[in-house]
Formats: sequence, structure tokens, C-alpha cells
Amino acid sequence: MSGRPIPARMIPSIFTLANLLFGFLALVWVLEANFDLASTMILLSVLMDSLDGKVARRLSVSSDFGKELDSLSDLVSFGVAPAILTYQGILQPLQSGYIRYIGLGIAVVFALCGAVRLARFNMLNIKTYFVGVPITFAGGLMALLMFIRHMLPWYVYPFSMVILAFLMVSTFKVPKLGK
Amino acid sequence: MSGRPIPARMIPSIFTLANLLFGFLALVWVLEANFDLASTMILLSVLMDSLDGKVARRLSVSSDFGKELDSLSDLVSFGVAPAILTYQGILQPLQSGYIRYIGLGIAVVFALCGAVRLARFNMLNIKTYFVGVPITFAGGLMALLMFIRHMLPWYVYPFSMVILAFLMVSTFKVPKLGK
Repeated sequence: MSGRPIPARMIPSIFTLANLLFGFLALVWVLEANFDLASTMILLSVLMDSLDGKVARRLSVSSDFGKELDSLSDLVSFGVAPAILTYQGILQPLQSGYIRYIGLGIAVVFALCGAVRLARFNMLNIKTYFVGVPITFAGGLMALLMFIRHMLPWYVYPFSMVILAFLMVSTFKVPKLGK
Repeated sequence: MSGRPIPARMIPSIFTLANLLFGFLALVWVLEANFDLASTMILLSVLMDSLDGKVARRLSVSSDFGKELDSLSDLVSFGVAPAILTYQGILQPLQSGYIRYIGLGIAVVFALCGAVRLARFNMLNIKTYFVGVPITFAGGLMALLMFIRHMLPWYVYPFSMVILAFLMVSTFKVPKLGK
């Protein structure tokens, strides 16, 4: 109501921080074993992530700071949170000895491949296409699959995670939509 | 045993990925309510984080990719993991209604301030001193405090988190040691 308005260059970063906030809350809801709410948080992060870029372009205020913050938030919301969610919701309850550690290994690989993808993409600085599958897609898809986990056999989850991890670090080109 | 040796430029990134791995495992141990092991994982991340920089300088292979990967791993291991650990180990069990949400708010602020710090520091690209308290210090200190949680009153934890969150985004200069 009072005081100075928020500078235009800060507005996209508010959406990016909301992306990170929802990613963090997804982890909190996994702790509470509320996997539907955790999936919802990740999908809200997808929404925030699509808004920050759109707003930055509309206001012409893209910045290195914003790009950095975006990568950082993306790793938490679409790398770590979906991996922890799938591990705790699907892979860990299948704990017959070694199988459980294979599930943990798959979750770790998903998060690590997401980080490698983000580090490489930020370095390449390409604007017109993605190299490999974007982490937002991979994490968003895992969140959607977790919503319908009662309708799918368990092995869909480790299988999807391995495929998506590989596609994130692969080097084929994916066209950017909605520019 | 067989095949090509790992290229020298990749070696620091192996330590950085180990940093992220231990950060991820810290979250997994929080899920299992093993807070001592979760704290240990964060301290192992501190060790890996100190090694990756040293190795990169020794081998003269510092890269933009390595720097990006380092920031990404640092947010998980020293921003998100200590925040989730402290929330679940100290703040959440104090759940008398609203108090719990204040605890959650403090944990969120800690992680968000860590992200802002990393995004800003990577952009400034300063080599000789830190601006604000490094996230590795803040996250490592919270992990140490969690080790001795039976010896300290509960209010030390929210108080430390708020102070450290503020110090991470503050702009005073902290000299780099051990260069």
C-alpha cells in the first residue's frame, strides 16, 4: 500500500523464488507422506517456471542474476524434489533388500543428471532450442505420473526415471515451443 | 582398469557431484528420521566442496561448467538439506498450531536466501573475497548444530537460521581463507 513499487527487473525473480518455494514445500509434503500434495507443489513450480521467463521477456528485463536463480530453483523443484518424491512414494516401499538401494541409486542418478543438464545448458547459452530434454519437462512428468500412481504398475517409475535422466544429459536438439 | 583415463578437466566435477550426492542422501536420511546421519552427509558435502575448488586450481582446469555445477550442488547440500533437516528435527516437532508454520517459514527463508546468495555471487565473479557469509559455512554450521541438538535449547535453531539467512544475503565482505 505504501512505499516504493517493486523494480521491474525484480519481478521475474519473484516467480523464480516462488518456483523454489513450491519445490521446497514438495519436499516438506513428502516428509508428511502426502504424495498428492507434493506432486501438486511440483506442478505449481512448473507454472511459476513458465511465468518467470514469459514475464522477463515481456518486461525486457532478462538478467544473469535471473538466469542463475532460475537454474538453482529448477534443480530443487524438478531434479531433487521429484526424485525424493518417487523414491519415498514408490521405490523405497518396495524394500526387499538390495532392490531398495537400486531405487535409491536411480533417484540419485535422476537428480545428478538434472544438475549436469542445467550446468551444461547455462554454459551453452542457446536461445532457440534445448539440448536434451529440459529438466522442467522431466520433473513435471514425474510429478504427473505420481498423481496417477494407483493406476500404473510400480516398474513404470524407475523405468521412466532412468529414461528421463538419460534424455536430460543426451545431446539431441528439442525445439523450444511458445516463444 | 581398462579404457581411457578420465580427462583432467572432469576430475573437479566428480567432487562436485559427490557434494550433490551427499546433499541428496542427507534428505533421504531426514526421511528416515536419522538426523545424525543426515548431518554427517552435509559435513561430507562440505569436505567435497572444499576439495573440488582445490583440485580445480591444482590442475588448472577451472571451467564455467564446473562453477555452475558447484552452485547447483551447494544450494541442495547447504541450503535445502540443512533447512529440511532443521525443520524436521527441531522446528516441526514443536507443532503447537501456528508455531509450526513459523518454523516452516524460517526454513523456507534460509533456503531462499541461500539461492539469492549463490545467484548473486556467481554473477559478481569475485575471486579474492566473499560478499556475505558463504552458503557452505551457513549450511555446515547448521549441520554441526544439529549434531549437538541434545545439548542446546530449541530456540538456538530458528534464531541461528534467521541470522545466517540474513548474513548470506548481506553485502559485507568476508576474506577468503586458504587460497
